[in-house]
Amino acid sequence: MNALGRHLLLELKSCDKEVLNDIDALREALLAAATECGATVLGESFHQFSPQGVSGVVIIAESHLFIHTWPEYGYAAADIFTCGNSVQPERAAQVLMRRLGSQNHSMVEMRRGILGND
Amino acid sequence: MNALGRHLLLELKSCDKEVLNDIDALREALLAAATECGATVLGESFHQFSPQGVSGVVIIAESHLFIHTWPEYGYAAADIFTCGNSVQPERAAQVLMRRLGSQNHSMVEMRRGILGND
Repeated sequence: MNALGRHLLLELKSCDKEVLNDIDALREALLAAATECGATVLGESFHQFSPQGVSGVVIIAESHLFIHTWPEYGYAAADIFTCGNSVQPERAAQVLMRRLGSQNHSMVEMRRGILGND
Repeated sequence: MNALGRHLLLELKSCDKEVLNDIDALREALLAAATECGATVLGESFHQFSPQGVSGVVIIAESHLFIHTWPEYGYAAADIFTCGNSVQPERAAQVLMRRLGSQNHSMVEMRRGILGND
């Protein structure tokens, strides 16, 4: 069954809390993840929240990666959405897990754009 | 069961193909969706692809909205990720469906950040 996109939804628990509140480290992690999976980076937008937490998106030619962090819980939600066969989103997931020091994670894959005749 | 975030994944089919390739209309649609659901907009990033298609993200204080469009298939993938009780992501979904003229859609809700004792 063909789909236009693959969408990995990562629940990253028991992460390094300092990294989860470090906007520069998170930007580097998302950019490294994008590069590692073979994507072409087009843009980014990161925001630091008070008293803690970061949201960030990296737009890639093949769709996007985003992350939202809750340092107080050692938790981050990350999504990796890719199109085409030239990228390997699992490699991006591995980079994020490693960089955030996640000791406990789960991952769901959604296939996006499964088109019929409608 | 408490979760930190609500994540609506929208499959928007049989959309208005002209709107799907109109970066300004899509930016307005996402910003209107964010406003309508009660979110606070922090930033945005939109990209027009050649020969067609648009990717766009609006970062909100409560997480994000994104859209990726395939005008050639009349299809768009849209996500609405919100945190907290002050926003109503279903209202954003209604705005996107209406603005894109989707005649056929499906929606899945994922709860993000369901934390145990780990």
